Amino acid sequence: MSKFLKEGYARLVPYVPGEQPKDRAYVKLNTNENPYPPCPAAQSVLDDEAKLLRLYSDPESSELVRAIADLYGVSEQNVLVTNGSDESLAFLFCAFFDQKRAVAFPDITYGFYPIFADYAGASYEEIPLREDFTIDVEAMLRSKKHLVFANPNAPTGLKIELSDVRRLAQSDPDRLVVVDEAYVDFGADSAVPLIKEYDNLIVVQTFSKSRSLAGARLGMTFAPKALLDDLKTVKYSFNPYNVNRLTEKLGKAAIEDVAYFTDCVNKVKKTRTEAKVRLESLGFFVLPSYSNFLFARHERIGGKDLYLALKDRGVLVRHFDKARIADFVRVTVGTDEQMDILYAALQDILEKTTR
Amino acid sequence: MSKFLKEGYARLVPYVPGEQPKDRAYVKLNTNENPYPPCPAAQSVLDDEAKLLRLYSDPESSELVRAIADLYGVSEQNVLVTNGSDESLAFLFCAFFDQKRAVAFPDITYGFYPIFADYAGASYEEIPLREDFTIDVEAMLRSKKHLVFANPNAPTGLKIELSDVRRLAQSDPDRLVVVDEAYVDFGADSAVPLIKEYDNLIVVQTFSKSRSLAGARLGMTFAPKALLDDLKTVKYSFNPYNVNRLTEKLGKAAIEDVAYFTDCVNKVKKTRTEAKVRLESLGFFVLPSYSNFLFARHERIGGKDLYLALKDRGVLVRHFDKARIADFVRVTVGTDEQMDILYAALQDILEKTTR
Repeated sequence: MSKFLKEGYARLVPYVPGEQPKDRAYVKLNTNENPYPPCPAAQSVLDDEAKLLRLYSDPESSELVRAIADLYGVSEQNVLVTNGSDESLAFLFCAFFDQKRAVAFPDITYGFYPIFADYAGASYEEIPLREDFTIDVEAMLRSKKHLVFANPNAPTGLKIELSDVRRLAQSDPDRLVVVDEAYVDFGADSAVPLIKEYDNLIVVQTFSKSRSLAGARLGMTFAPKALLDDLKTVKYSFNPYNVNRLTEKLGKAAIEDVAYFTDCVNKVKKTRTEAKVRLESLGFFVLPSYSNFLFARHERIGGKDLYLALKDRGVLVRHFDKARIADFVRVTVGTDEQMDILYAALQDILEKTTR
Repeated sequence: MSKFLKEGYARLVPYVPGEQPKDRAYVKLNTNENPYPPCPAAQSVLDDEAKLLRLYSDPESSELVRAIADLYGVSEQNVLVTNGSDESLAFLFCAFFDQKRAVAFPDITYGFYPIFADYAGASYEEIPLREDFTIDVEAMLRSKKHLVFANPNAPTGLKIELSDVRRLAQSDPDRLVVVDEAYVDFGADSAVPLIKEYDNLIVVQTFSKSRSLAGARLGMTFAPKALLDDLKTVKYSFNPYNVNRLTEKLGKAAIEDVAYFTDCVNKVKKTRTEAKVRLESLGFFVLPSYSNFLFARHERIGGKDLYLALKDRGVLVRHFDKARIADFVRVTVGTDEQMDILYAALQDILEKTTR
């Protein structure tokens, strides 16, 4: 740390992204990417666009925003695109949360929320998940703070119903409710239509999962106009050209190819269903999943040991060294071929494990 | 503005990007883009990379950082890449400047600096340019604040010498000196080698100008390790995957094709030299330019009228409605063909103007 860093920043503990080791080829099931490439049009747009890279991107990303608004049945004034949904979360934590305007989120969820809160100089409360790892909606209702939660939640893969999102949004018009829907397309009901009913609701989605564009960095945020305008104020005070030209085109292509999107999501869901059965047959306890990953534990091997044994065999999964979930691993749903490699590796590990 | 926006943000006046009108085709000389496409390799990398877009980008952008470090003769620990140089400036204003740690910059310069300062909640002082529009190095030395300045400066196109950058960095080890070198490749000496000598020096560059990648959004920042680590702390607390996969590849290709880069810069400089002569022959007063744009005024027509008359004729230039420079227009150096259209339009305008 240099002597110049501001006091508020000196205690920041930055987010640690999922590992991307380069020492060998891995079956990469650790960062919840999509196993299938983006839609065919996403590749061809690059050819045309490369020549135009000398020109700035459209700060309003108008064509992309229009395509999103059309598909989701909202006004263009209710849509903001960002350099990944992380950037939108960073913007909104900075815009709305501080010492006085504290925020609450589940204790087991996306690990970036407490870091965004620290970055924004915001107080926060971590609300424990219930015994069954579901979000404790009643405790969130009792909390007087702004709320942020992922639906489906990560790393559990569990969801809450839209009726509960409604209850949270209705509980207090002075409380912001932010729903992070990174995984919503794999099995939960989206709260996007509700932004027309509630002035205090923000919904954040990403192109990184269901639309296979993690590497393009694109997020979309839906909110009532007043809240969206606040986020635009932040964007235009921070990084007006936050989405690059290629990603603007890629995102539009991905939004327009609904058939490819549906097919891709369905393939992941089918593999997920088969994987749960398969893992259970290997003796795993597997949480129900409404996302593109499975959260599983085995009584004969700890989460960290399992993670290491799989890595040894060329398969990357994610382990969180945290109370209550240290015995679990989070496994992204891959292609059927990748999953077969996973099953074989697990079988091999379990045969050699007696605990 | 919603009722939720924090007090500090309520008075933010966001940055206004150069206009990108879509009503017709324009000769676009208003946002200092490069008139030539990026290097040939920049296009072919996209074909290979498109299939991999489902995967996250490398949060460390290791290959790109290594290529930059090699070319500029610094360590990889001294290089950070960001989503445009604007993002780096936003990070560093937030990391280092506040009410107590105020910052100073020229009064006529990149219009984003006061906005970044407001965003970061920082006090700032605007130091007037001298009569001849050069940066007042003596006044900056006298200021006790941290310093940010563009070299060459925009919209003037004028530069200061490296010996003056040294004097500023040496003046006080507790003062940060940030040199924004967006235009440095067109005619000023870079301060990058000086980061090895001064613990308080940060140099920010962009791929948007000399490397024709404005639409890809890529900036690079050079600093001593302690300062660079602070910026990494901010990045990893805000947006760890801030540079997308395609841009990582595009940037590397652009760094490696030194011959194309040199040729492109030389073409712009040649056109700039000819343009200055040509504009002067039309009766313009033109500041010496060390950048990829010319700052010029004509005694027979005001800056705003000239801007409007050119726009009428399909040529976009930039006008700033600000004291001392309201009579000027800033003209990006385009291709020779674009410049011929500009000259013809100017001739036509001036023939019809008697003031």
